[in-house]
Amino acid sequence: MNAAFAELKQRLAETHDLAKAMAVLGWDQRTMMPRLGGEARAGQLATVGKIHHELFTSDEVGRLLEGLRPYEESLPYDSDEASLIRVTRRDWEKERRVPAELAGEILREGSRGQAAWLAAKQASDFSLFLPALRKVTELALRYAECFDAGDSPYDAFLDDYEPGMKTAEVKAVFDVLRPELTAIVREAGPPADDSFLHGDFPVARQEAFLRDLLPAFGFADGAWRLDPTVHPFCTSFSPRDVRMTTRYSPAGVRALFASMHEAGHGLYAHGLGPSLERSPLARSPSLGLDESQSRTWENLVGRSRPFWERYYGPLQETFPEQLAGVGLDDYLRAINRVVPSLIRVDADEVTYSLHIILRFELEQEIVSSTLALEDLPEAWREKSRELLGIVPETDAEGVLQDVHWSRGGYGYFPTYALGNVISLQLWRRIQHDLRGLDDQLAAGDFHQLHGWLQERLYRHGRKFTPKETLERVLGSGDLDPQPFLEYLREKVQVYQPA
Amino acid sequence: MNAAFAELKQRLAETHDLAKAMAVLGWDQRTMMPRLGGEARAGQLATVGKIHHELFTSDEVGRLLEGLRPYEESLPYDSDEASLIRVTRRDWEKERRVPAELAGEILREGSRGQAAWLAAKQASDFSLFLPALRKVTELALRYAECFDAGDSPYDAFLDDYEPGMKTAEVKAVFDVLRPELTAIVREAGPPADDSFLHGDFPVARQEAFLRDLLPAFGFADGAWRLDPTVHPFCTSFSPRDVRMTTRYSPAGVRALFASMHEAGHGLYAHGLGPSLERSPLARSPSLGLDESQSRTWENLVGRSRPFWERYYGPLQETFPEQLAGVGLDDYLRAINRVVPSLIRVDADEVTYSLHIILRFELEQEIVSSTLALEDLPEAWREKSRELLGIVPETDAEGVLQDVHWSRGGYGYFPTYALGNVISLQLWRRIQHDLRGLDDQLAAGDFHQLHGWLQERLYRHGRKFTPKETLERVLGSGDLDPQPFLEYLREKVQVYQPA
Repeated sequence: MNAAFAELKQRLAETHDLAKAMAVLGWDQRTMMPRLGGEARAGQLATVGKIHHELFTSDEVGRLLEGLRPYEESLPYDSDEASLIRVTRRDWEKERRVPAELAGEILREGSRGQAAWLAAKQASDFSLFLPALRKVTELALRYAECFDAGDSPYDAFLDDYEPGMKTAEVKAVFDVLRPELTAIVREAGPPADDSFLHGDFPVARQEAFLRDLLPAFGFADGAWRLDPTVHPFCTSFSPRDVRMTTRYSPAGVRALFASMHEAGHGLYAHGLGPSLERSPLARSPSLGLDESQSRTWENLVGRSRPFWERYYGPLQETFPEQLAGVGLDDYLRAINRVVPSLIRVDADEVTYSLHIILRFELEQEIVSSTLALEDLPEAWREKSRELLGIVPETDAEGVLQDVHWSRGGYGYFPTYALGNVISLQLWRRIQHDLRGLDDQLAAGDFHQLHGWLQERLYRHGRKFTPKETLERVLGSGDLDPQPFLEYLREKVQVYQPA
Repeated sequence: MNAAFAELKQRLAETHDLAKAMAVLGWDQRTMMPRLGGEARAGQLATVGKIHHELFTSDEVGRLLEGLRPYEESLPYDSDEASLIRVTRRDWEKERRVPAELAGEILREGSRGQAAWLAAKQASDFSLFLPALRKVTELALRYAECFDAGDSPYDAFLDDYEPGMKTAEVKAVFDVLRPELTAIVREAGPPADDSFLHGDFPVARQEAFLRDLLPAFGFADGAWRLDPTVHPFCTSFSPRDVRMTTRYSPAGVRALFASMHEAGHGLYAHGLGPSLERSPLARSPSLGLDESQSRTWENLVGRSRPFWERYYGPLQETFPEQLAGVGLDDYLRAINRVVPSLIRVDADEVTYSLHIILRFELEQEIVSSTLALEDLPEAWREKSRELLGIVPETDAEGVLQDVHWSRGGYGYFPTYALGNVISLQLWRRIQHDLRGLDDQLAAGDFHQLHGWLQERLYRHGRKFTPKETLERVLGSGDLDPQPFLEYLREKVQVYQPA
């Protein structure tokens, strides 16, 4: 092996170790850490983050990357080696633009912001969060200034989550979704009865149901955990150490769907090709692509009729008091009911993306400073009225419901809706390639589905950009919201209340 | 503030953050990590450890320490500042002698050794552990060679856990304990009946009992956790993030005592003075002093009559099926029964230190290469017969019972017995200073006891050496096994079977 390449790989393996150490610190912070541990944890994350930044952006890494140009050009574009050099160079050039001090401050204030958000949400009082939000927003804008202005300063944020994507592209997709989704909500008619999904669903039984289900999706034994947290997420410390989290409520089964959602993220991390481990390629190409998988397993599998033909019996046996007398059709209507609601993570598939558009539009105003942060709760209420037809009565149910902004994570939300869009673009191809897919799902057999995704998506990690990835799988890298809209229109027809 | 001192403090804060990041990785590894996560975790620990080593042992830190000599000499010996410089210099000079490569390898192979030990223990097959043990032992001996030979190469190991202590001092204490303890075992007579401590003690109720008890000892709300693990330990990520672990069995209450033990370690970490945080002073002076506190809360408090005068009622209410018909006297005899047994962590207060002497004597032979590692199981059995009068039938109950050697941790075991010795030296002084202590314990009031320890020990962290610490508290820094032996002799008299 090329000696410079071997040296680059070793350096990248060590920076990857640091990134994964930070992931462990972050997972612990959000699942296990005692309340008073936050201040010290913020310092620990800042220090490891600072060293990670220094090591990765070192002149030496730049020199190695530069010297490796001939080696890179001698190799196929899609080889692991050329991809590692190409993607690392892009990352290096981006990260070099951010001073280490600023990167450290963003991490530290992000940890503090998260703690402030949690306290403010518990008190349902935006004013408790405002100072921290100001700080992380100021840092986010300083971060954006490190990059060449695109059409919008928002491009800098978006690029961190969807490399190469422009704000204008997102806006184009959302401009299609906005009127169509509000139309579909109207078409859906009155919401189906789901009263039987509210009652007594002991958490331990939900956990047991999921412990049986997730391995069937494709997880190896001894390679994953599922833990409770406030705001569900998935992280991984290697393909064989995947940490999913969920939020249980004994009053309903929402956690089942939230867990299948995180399992989709988890399968992506679990499926990484061994040759890409301990490198910058050891993750998915973008949040949108990652989200396409969480939505696939949560919705395209997990809310489908074939899936529940297999699993509704076991679910009834798990919760007989609640479900023994409820038929499959009524259950399917309930879990697929469409009705505007206040909380994004509880939203149905149609209104979900409206929640995202709400946040995207507010973020545009924040970034362009046309909206003062103290006016955010009121702006939220107005947008909610406009897009969802309902208005939160409290900050906890409104502007404080999500953690993302507390870390300065502008540009993150749109990727959720892009994930919905991409999931259907991929699903149409899967339906074409895998004849008998519905029968397989109805038999609880996920091997072919998982194998298709593993082969085409998961194992490649981040070798290709999101656009390249879609091109390789679909023949075109363009986002197309139409399959998603068709899918929703069909669904609201099928699941019209009886 | 002196600018060089401020710079030193900042550098030390960052290395401390890395050490604590490693502590989080280690805690997770031993409590939460899925089975297949071990290999990646070993790499992560090795990388963070290597960077920690490089940063701490940098020329720049040495230059700062050297330049700070006049500042240090201008300050009182017991000031935080002089202590930080003095202790850091000692650490720096020690760690400079260890090449970064070796330090990294020790960490990496230690993680692997731990995994090999776990598998070997589960299979009760020493041969599965032998290759890893050879590797970590070879690394440990290479480590010892980095230092000037003392009277024994074992001095180098011991110094990591008991700074300044020599093998000869330990041997002198153990030479007293060995015959005296075996004599006390004989005096104890036939073991008391403890059949009622074996049965049905639901783990959830044990957890609830501990959740009520530990805050009474002195833990602040939101600053600690107690989790299950295989081999109980305590770690902390700050004084406000203390992680205790225990091993529950539904068949007995051993976990209550194991948890009070870890709580003693936890209180030490929890009580650190704020001015010492994020520095090399932010821990106890030695494992022996730390262990003195775990033994204080486990045994001197947790197996005492006054303590159970307060807590036996609640315990009976927690486990009425087991204990409703058992009187306090019989319960006290049972939890204080003396009988040789195979497993160190389950041993009573008298035989416990014999388990330690067994390991210490084997370690002397390993380090001097008079015992080949493949002969260790047989040597263990012989020593066990000699010291305890019983012989393990399996490796799991013998040589594989403890994790320490799997990480190459020679020199660690003796500190457990030293902790017993020190705990009584301190306790005699506490009994002198705190009149009415028994009445306080009998009222479940630990404030004065905790306050005494907090003021004299916990808050000072590692400002002083173990010897200095004992000198400051007791007037003499010498180890004295007599109070411990007197305590045991008195106990076996009091708790003679009825």
